[in-house]
Amino acid sequence: MPAELLHRVTSDIFAAHHVPRHDADRVAHCLVEADLRGVASHGVGRIPIYTERLRRKLVNPAPALTTERAMTVAARVDGDNGLGFVVGTRAMDLAIEIATAHGVGLVLVHRSTHYGMAASYLLQALEAGFCAFAFTNASPAMPIWGGREAFLGTSPFAFAAPGGDGSPPVVVDMAMSVVARGKIRRAMQRGEKIPEGWALDAEGRATTDAKAGYEGVVLPAAGVKGSALSLMMEILAGVLSGAAFGGEVRNQYIDFEQPQNVGHCFLALKPDLFLPRAELAQRMGDLARRAKSGPKAQGVDEILLPGEPEARIAARRRLDGIPLDASELATVIAEADAVKVEVPASLRASADSPPRAMGA
Amino acid sequence: MPAELLHRVTSDIFAAHHVPRHDADRVAHCLVEADLRGVASHGVGRIPIYTERLRRKLVNPAPALTTERAMTVAARVDGDNGLGFVVGTRAMDLAIEIATAHGVGLVLVHRSTHYGMAASYLLQALEAGFCAFAFTNASPAMPIWGGREAFLGTSPFAFAAPGGDGSPPVVVDMAMSVVARGKIRRAMQRGEKIPEGWALDAEGRATTDAKAGYEGVVLPAAGVKGSALSLMMEILAGVLSGAAFGGEVRNQYIDFEQPQNVGHCFLALKPDLFLPRAELAQRMGDLARRAKSGPKAQGVDEILLPGEPEARIAARRRLDGIPLDASELATVIAEADAVKVEVPASLRASADSPPRAMGA
Repeated sequence: MPAELLHRVTSDIFAAHHVPRHDADRVAHCLVEADLRGVASHGVGRIPIYTERLRRKLVNPAPALTTERAMTVAARVDGDNGLGFVVGTRAMDLAIEIATAHGVGLVLVHRSTHYGMAASYLLQALEAGFCAFAFTNASPAMPIWGGREAFLGTSPFAFAAPGGDGSPPVVVDMAMSVVARGKIRRAMQRGEKIPEGWALDAEGRATTDAKAGYEGVVLPAAGVKGSALSLMMEILAGVLSGAAFGGEVRNQYIDFEQPQNVGHCFLALKPDLFLPRAELAQRMGDLARRAKSGPKAQGVDEILLPGEPEARIAARRRLDGIPLDASELATVIAEADAVKVEVPASLRASADSPPRAMGA
Repeated sequence: MPAELLHRVTSDIFAAHHVPRHDADRVAHCLVEADLRGVASHGVGRIPIYTERLRRKLVNPAPALTTERAMTVAARVDGDNGLGFVVGTRAMDLAIEIATAHGVGLVLVHRSTHYGMAASYLLQALEAGFCAFAFTNASPAMPIWGGREAFLGTSPFAFAAPGGDGSPPVVVDMAMSVVARGKIRRAMQRGEKIPEGWALDAEGRATTDAKAGYEGVVLPAAGVKGSALSLMMEILAGVLSGAAFGGEVRNQYIDFEQPQNVGHCFLALKPDLFLPRAELAQRMGDLARRAKSGPKAQGVDEILLPGEPEARIAARRRLDGIPLDASELATVIAEADAVKVEVPASLRASADSPPRAMGA
């Protein structure tokens, strides 16, 4: 599936839900970018939940984003319950604008919704030549360390810095849970055990039984450490911004009563504050070369820096297309059909034909 | 050992090494604060390495700290190879000063040295009413993910936010290694196995053998996640600041050829940018209450937020004194004697008497 084709259909779907074209394009860009980078969990397969919430008027297709400034370098965006992609993009743009003028820009956001893959906003900052943090809070999915019920989000810690001479940018985008819940589900389906430290059962006991873990909660990465970082994001993105916090962000999949009121925190930072850009590029390149040229752990072919695997997958998929699985493809087509968006024949054809691996 | 007594002797020791009294007091404050908080690894037991490097003129007792400003909210401090405590304190002060005027303050530091317990700088920011990050790079102690030789520092991720109504501040200060190397050494001494994921042996193979792990390298917390965060601190504190980076920060314990050239990155952030302080205190209090009142995992008596265990130990030790072990006490006395600093009789007496637990 060529990325351009997928982008066009996705944008059309959101436009049909009364999202202005410019914003629909940005949403499509973020979703397709996730699929390009191999982050299928944040790709076009998620379209149905966004359109469902648009239909139910829990997400505002054309939010009136308003901005408040405080002191020199801080701003707050009221997301007016718009799509998190649209709100987040505007907020990171503002952080970049402030950092361009003053070195650092901080933008807090309230009344937003699920913003998809955090790396989208990091890439936005990288394109402008900035380092950045992107933090969000989220509906409860993980206990705080010591607890046994979902309280914190599994939202990612996200940081980026521009690449150097011969080295790609560093893009850190990683959930603060030890593992995605989907991995526990797959172990359960295969009848496999899960490693210690992945989950608690419903009674709050450590377990290696996948079914018991799936019925319980997934634990924070590195235990107390992942819990602390998730709490930090809850404070910066939730408490300080005026958004929902402390277990009150609505779960977009199960709560259809109210908008989510997600909070975000974006910080853009000009890297060449004290060293000229050329020297910085040299230093970042040296860092990457030294990191990658050291002796490897057993079983490791190549040392990859954060973001490098995703960038490689994306480069390949930009050329070869995105290998959507049958259910994702069917999802996109169903969403298009539901709002009478034209589906290119090639897309429909590949959904109708049996997968190539089966022979034909 | 009363904290005041320990502070006085420690300050006198540094003053005898030609550290100006004001700075000697700050060094003593940071070291004793670590012992108060139960972080003995960064307490007065470390005095000998700092005085050794002062004697060898690798640490400058009276650095001429110089400051450069860039754009509105960024500054860089040249530490002139001073004690990291002194340089770090000055830099965080500056970050607070800038944040007071503009909302956020960013201060990068180069030509510094080991700065001890990161929480010292967080507490400094909290006293002024600010949220803060404190990052440092450090000499190689941990492989990057995929490598098998020490490359990154185990330096802590450090973040703080002011407390709320009835809740203490949140103080996150945690090394990015899965475990302190000392824990592997103790397992080796006891002939115990270590858990999977703690260490690689010298050939880069995963091991549960404590001796093999001690001779190899300790791994990053949560594998690729701890590695990514440590790399992030290397970029912010090392690459951007102009300090040594990428394996070139000197190890203060084994390299007596050159100053360390450690880099730091401090960011202070005014919390009440958009919500009044009283409302924020209410929200932080709510967050703490909700987090702590949830159902607990099996075997957990109380859910504690980051920094809470250390604050409790410190409150107790401020009243009851610090239980230094015999070797720490002997170290302090030897350091005092070496520079003819007066040691209070009570301190010398408790070093001479057998430990109370042995009876007497």
